[in-house]
Parts: sequence; structure tokens; C-alpha cells
Amino acid sequence: MTAILIAALAWSSLFAPPSPALHENTVPDTLRAIAGFDPSLYEEDVKAILDAAVSDTSGFRRLEWLSDYYPKRLSGSRNLEDAIDWIVQEMRQDGFDEVRTQDVMVPVWERGEESATLISPAKRVLPMLGLGNSVGTPEEGIEAEVVVVRSFEELRDQRDRIAGRIVLFNVPFETYGKTVIFRTNGAIEAARYGAVASLIRSVGPFSLQTPHTGNSSYMDGLPKIPQAAITSEDAMWMQRMADRGETIRVHLRMQARTLPDRKSRNIIADLKGSEFPEEVIVLGGHIDSWDVGQGAMDDGGGVVATWEAVRLIASLGLRPKRTMRVVLWTNEENGLRGAMAYRDLAVEEGIENHVLAIESDAGVFDPVGFGFSGPEPALDLLREIGRYLEPIESGEVLRGGGGADIGPLMTLGVPGMGLLVDGSRYFWYHHTEADTVDKLSNEDFNECVATLAVFAYVVGSLPSFRF
Amino acid sequence: MTAILIAALAWSSLFAPPSPALHENTVPDTLRAIAGFDPSLYEEDVKAILDAAVSDTSGFRRLEWLSDYYPKRLSGSRNLEDAIDWIVQEMRQDGFDEVRTQDVMVPVWERGEESATLISPAKRVLPMLGLGNSVGTPEEGIEAEVVVVRSFEELRDQRDRIAGRIVLFNVPFETYGKTVIFRTNGAIEAARYGAVASLIRSVGPFSLQTPHTGNSSYMDGLPKIPQAAITSEDAMWMQRMADRGETIRVHLRMQARTLPDRKSRNIIADLKGSEFPEEVIVLGGHIDSWDVGQGAMDDGGGVVATWEAVRLIASLGLRPKRTMRVVLWTNEENGLRGAMAYRDLAVEEGIENHVLAIESDAGVFDPVGFGFSGPEPALDLLREIGRYLEPIESGEVLRGGGGADIGPLMTLGVPGMGLLVDGSRYFWYHHTEADTVDKLSNEDFNECVATLAVFAYVVGSLPSFRF
Repeated sequence: MTAILIAALAWSSLFAPPSPALHENTVPDTLRAIAGFDPSLYEEDVKAILDAAVSDTSGFRRLEWLSDYYPKRLSGSRNLEDAIDWIVQEMRQDGFDEVRTQDVMVPVWERGEESATLISPAKRVLPMLGLGNSVGTPEEGIEAEVVVVRSFEELRDQRDRIAGRIVLFNVPFETYGKTVIFRTNGAIEAARYGAVASLIRSVGPFSLQTPHTGNSSYMDGLPKIPQAAITSEDAMWMQRMADRGETIRVHLRMQARTLPDRKSRNIIADLKGSEFPEEVIVLGGHIDSWDVGQGAMDDGGGVVATWEAVRLIASLGLRPKRTMRVVLWTNEENGLRGAMAYRDLAVEEGIENHVLAIESDAGVFDPVGFGFSGPEPALDLLREIGRYLEPIESGEVLRGGGGADIGPLMTLGVPGMGLLVDGSRYFWYHHTEADTVDKLSNEDFNECVATLAVFAYVVGSLPSFRF
Repeated sequence: MTAILIAALAWSSLFAPPSPALHENTVPDTLRAIAGFDPSLYEEDVKAILDAAVSDTSGFRRLEWLSDYYPKRLSGSRNLEDAIDWIVQEMRQDGFDEVRTQDVMVPVWERGEESATLISPAKRVLPMLGLGNSVGTPEEGIEAEVVVVRSFEELRDQRDRIAGRIVLFNVPFETYGKTVIFRTNGAIEAARYGAVASLIRSVGPFSLQTPHTGNSSYMDGLPKIPQAAITSEDAMWMQRMADRGETIRVHLRMQARTLPDRKSRNIIADLKGSEFPEEVIVLGGHIDSWDVGQGAMDDGGGVVATWEAVRLIASLGLRPKRTMRVVLWTNEENGLRGAMAYRDLAVEEGIENHVLAIESDAGVFDPVGFGFSGPEPALDLLREIGRYLEPIESGEVLRGGGGADIGPLMTLGVPGMGLLVDGSRYFWYHHTEADTVDKLSNEDFNECVATLAVFAYVVGSLPSFRF
């Protein structure tokens, strides 16, 4: 999940009533759509989906396989392309009507060797991760005094001390949206005052000496300085040392570099609709991950759960009226090129036929339901559908939500839903070496699959889902 | 806290009623002692102690200082001796009547450089920590196939596959006592069948790719093979890979070595009793730590909290009838030499005058009370004293408890108490780089100090505390 998601979440508040509905121009009679929903019609199929989902082990085995054999799926990497090949090959045995890939040129950032060493007031190696998109240091590294600040305001207050130094943004995690701004913009602000490098306290609420990577940016007209994350523990240590008047010096060495774009692929797998095959319900997650850990929850789980949801519908011999389309995006983490490429394809195919886009990118923990951004009558209808999920308590539909990869569709008016799960630990693992499949459970994963499948299946089977 | 504590805890069950009391021979009339306790006599002093403790910041500042400037206090290290010097110097300004050190020869184990690299079925560096007391590998390291087992039984079942291989004990954390046996005895059992090295899944219930060190042992007559801990994540990964039939190969390189014993010191600081100065109440924790993290909770917190408890009593101008003695032990982690040396000193001074020994070595988290091993009437009395702590909910006294460093005193009949705290996360940090002071709070620390001080003060002020 990138910072772009945050923008999507903020943007989703546009849909709060009494704002106009997204497809307002084409809404004939919203209440007819809702009235067209007869819960008893789908009762039996939903039960079959739930039963099959909660007893499954093959989906979770695939998630383990993806995580164990294709970890560190950063854009441009061999592992990402091998994962795509493996998924396509597996999908071709799954009863989809069509499995294809869409070429996408993606940015290529390579971490290379990197290290941060504390030089004074003590000498030790600091656990660290360079931030995506960062430039490297000179081969011999950079050694400089560290100025610790807690905010951009404090940086401005200290602006006369910044030139030639390394800035450390020691900002405790509040929410991802509030804190990640220091990862995305820290180097820009530090460079403004002449800093030679920017360090951030890792963006996460809990740490066992755990550095978190993630994307970062530069601004034209300002020097591009290297940027990296250190652990919360070390950031707090430096704060205490600075408060005691100690001079802190760090040696930073990074071989990070950006290479020319390379070709990657989105995966698009369709189970064609029986009555309105041109109408598409998109379900998906992103295949790429950071180059640390296994990317099991960001977003291996979303990839396999959405894929599994449609496979399961097909395996039960069910065929909804509308096309169920699994879209597995490339390059969510550092470019969103896959999402934009798919958006272009959707426009080409007729964006007005994308009736709903569903994303899972918050980990496949115990599901709660969905956040939905779209017309109010559709929200009411989805809440009715959610009642099917009372047995596993995952049918809540909240106003507002979506995801980074469906964001480009949503800005064109496609209603969007993001799977909501127990998020209590997601950011403990996010973009770290600890994003591994052992943190996930078959049971929670299955409930995510059930939740995705039931919503997609019922929406796909309604007489109408246009507002 | 070492495995020895576990033995002490098991041993403490000897004191469950109707077992005979420890000092049975010398108990004149237990009820008289209890009757001699008039709660109203200490009411005002206890209130002063509580008020002073909970509003203090200086104690926690000292814990931060110890953690930040003297981390990694392994026996034999410069940091340990520097920490001892600093504590002695600080204590001399604290109103104790006497501050002295006791020389103790301690084992010296040095980690040196170390690494574990996965060679197949994938290539990557594994986060690891060699186990204390381990021998090193040859300079070029050891590369061998890994046999994954879940128990000693499974090791025996696989005994024909072990020779020339590396054994990995993939045992999930259940309790420290049940799981740590694979750390202490793994290499012995693996060597029995010809293994060339022993790896364990780190002993801890939660991991963010976090290796845990700790002590380990060898057995005469069996080869000494190198032993190290890898992370829970990697142990589970290897299990999954082994279950899939993959061949796992690891290259292990460790420079670990044991050097001749060196001199270290216990610290002994007395606030002399006003009426029975020969009667001693010991309070303490251990100064040494592992050579990772800061040793903030294992056991910097116990050191500073027990020290602070007596400093606070002195600072209020209070002087109990009995001597309050802070004992800060060296070498708890890998030898217990400090505890045995202090026991010898106590015997020399008259062990019968050690009326109570109190230890804090489970982290200075939110305190609950104490576990107590000693005569039943004393338990009843301590429970009465615990009622003073109702305002901060830390006065519970459970039957059974103690600690590794007071263990040698307890085996000679000294009643022992171990501070009980919220232990929900202690073993997340235990013996890792994440045992850092930022995990602790001034508030919890202060409540630990208050709890220690109130019990010690009231017991020290009673007309009699002999049973």
C-alpha cells in the first residue's frame, strides 16, 4: 500500500452524502436497482461459496508458495517476472475463460549495498533500509553530523544548522497517512536547507529494531540527497543523545541507483459473464512488493485471495451475469504504472462497463468488510449484501475506501471497494523483512476469500448494478 | 533471566502447603510475628514512599543513562566494568551508609564475527546470533545440509540422517521453561548423533526477524559443535521447504571463543538498620547483560529499580530497623558467578541474618506484585503488606517465585521474592537487539520502585521477621 492510497482515501470523502453520486448522469432509478435485489435468489449459491471457502487449503498453499519461492518482487526484478509466469501458469488450470498479460514499462530502482554506521558518540552499525527512488552516496559514503528534528517546523527552526549535515526526522508513528509524509518528502525539505542526506525514523508503530523501506521523492530544482530509514529504537536513541548535548555523527553508504525502465506485466483473468459479459467487476491486488521480506501481506495475500475468490466461484460451476475479472497489478509500490496501464485498457474497452472495482491491499488478516466509495444507493445495496456474511462477521460496508491500484479507475467514476481487515499489526510488518507468510493464517485468508467472493458474486448476479 | 530461574521456580513448589516452612526449626511462634504487624504504624511512611516514587523522574533517567552509555554488558566486557564504576560513583551520592564491591571471577565468552548464509534452495543471509558458550567454526566456516526437527523425539527418529549435517530445532515458543531446553541442550543432543552444528529457532513468542541469543551448554564426552539461533521466520521457512522435499544447505561461520576468566564485581550498598543492623533484606538485579541490545529490561531495569527503592527510602529520611541492602550481581547471564560469590559472602556474614531476598529480573513493566517462596506465615504477612499497594494495584503476593540471583541464597533457606510484572511482551525482547529502554515507561518503572520500596520498608521496620 503506498501513500497514494491515502490520497484515494481522502478523495473518497467526496462521496459522503449529500454529494452527487458518481454516475449521477446515468442513474435511471436507484431504487429499482435495490428493489431488484432479492436475497433469496442467491442464498444457496452464497452458502456454497462460504462452505467451499472456509474449508479450503489450496489457496493458502499458493500464498505460501508465492511467498517462499518468489519473495522480494520489486519492479524490474527477476523474482517479479518469475512470479508473474508462475501465476499465469497456475491460473490457466483454474477454469478462467481467458488469462492474459498486459505489458507495462516499470521503473527500476536497485538498492545495491548499503550501510549506516554510527561514528559518535558511540560506534556501531545501524540497521537501516534505503528508501525507494533514493540516489546513492559517493562510493566512499558520506559522513556528517546528524541534526535531529521532530517535525518540518523544527527543521525550519533549525535551518541555519542544516547545511552540510544529515537530517534525522524522528517522528513517532501516529497514522500511516500522517507519518509517511516524512518518508515521501523528508529529503526534499532537508535538501532545501542544504542537508547532505535525510534519515527518517521508520514508519511503523512497533519495532524490534526493524527498519521499514518505502518510496520517496525528489523535487526539481533541489539537490537529490540520499535518503534512508533507521529503526525507531535508534531514532529515539539519537533524540536522547541530542537532548543531552551529544554530537552525533553517522557514516552513510548507499549504492542505490535508478536504471532504465523495464518491461513488466499486469495479469488479467476473466470469468465471462453469462448475460452481460461486457460488464466487468474487477477484483485484484498487486504482484510487486518491496525488495525485503516476502511481500506476503503487501500484497501477496491480496493477489491470491482475489484470484482464489474467482477460481472458487468457477470451481463451483457458478457463472454470474457479469464478468468477474481478476486484475493483478505490477508496480504498485514505486510507480503505480500497472494501475495506470490497466486504467488505459479499461478506457479503451469502455470504462462505463466497469461497474465495480474491488481491491485487497491491507493484508489478509481477519476481514471486517469493505470501505466503499460510490453512489449512495449502491452503498445501501452493498450493505444488504453484507448481511450474507454475518456468519463470519465480515459484511460491514463503511462509507469511503478504495485502494491505490483501483484509484485511477475510481477517478474516472468507477465505484471502488477496499477490503477491510483487522489492521492492528499491518504496519508492524509493512515494507520490512518481517512481511512473511507465517504472520498470516489459513483461516483468516479463507474468510477474506469468502468475503471477496460473496460480494463479487452477488453484485455480478444482480439484474442491474448501474446507478 | 536464565534457565536457572526455571529450576528455582520449580523448586519453589516445595513451599506449597502443607509442606514444612523453610525455617521451621527456628520458628518460635509464627502468629506472634503476624500479630506484631500494626498497619497503622507504617501508614504515613508508606504514603510518603508512594508519593515520592510515582512522581520521580531521576530513577528512570538513570535507567536511560545506563542503557544508552553502557549497553551490551556481557561478562568480561569493558562496558560491564564501566557500568559498575558509574553505578558505584552514583551510589556514593545517594545516602547509603556503605557502598562496596565484591570481586568475582567471571567467564569470558566472545562472539566475534558470525554469519549464517542460506546456500540452497535459495541464497540469502540469515539473521542469526551465536549462542553463549558456543565454540566457533573453522575459519572458513561449515557448510552442510540441514535436517529440520520439531522435538528431541523427532531428532532420535531421524538419527540415521544426522551425521555430518546441521540440525535445526524448529520448536515454537510455548513457555520459556519448556522451549529454552532446546537452546541449552540442543547441541548436546545433536552432537550425540554426529551433527556438525546445531541451530535453534529463536526462543520467543513473537518475531520481526528477530534472533535471540542466550546461554548454551556442552556435555563431556560429546563433541562441542557450534550452536546459533536463527529467526522464527526462517525456521518456519526451512520447515515448509523441508516438508516440500527441498534440500536445505546452510553455511555457518562463527568466531566465537571462550577466553580465561576475568575479574568483575558485585556491588553491595547498605542502608544500615536502626535497631537490627545485622539483619539484612537484600534487593537487587543483575548488572551484566547479553552483548546485544541495551540490556534495559534484562536487567538494567531491575538494577536501577531496586537501587532507586532504597535510595528513595533514604532520601525521605526513613531508616528501617533492618539493613536494606542493594546487591547488584555480575554474571547472571552466563555463569551465575556473582550470585554464588554473594551467597558465599552472606554465609561468611551469617546467612541466618538474611531475613529476605528480593529480586527484579522480569523487566520493569507494570507491576503486579511478587511471587514468594518461604514460610507460609510470612506469605500471609506479606499479603497483608501488599494491601498498601492497592492504589497502584501491585500488591498481590503469589505462592512460589524467586529469581536466578537469589537462588543460591534461597537454597540455603532465605525466603525469596521475585517482582511480578505484566509479562506479556518480555520474551519478545529477551536477549535481542530490541531490549532497549524505549520499550519501558517512566510510569511503570516508578510503580516497580514503589512496590519494591514499600515491601522492603515495611518488612524492614517490623518488630520481627523471623519464622
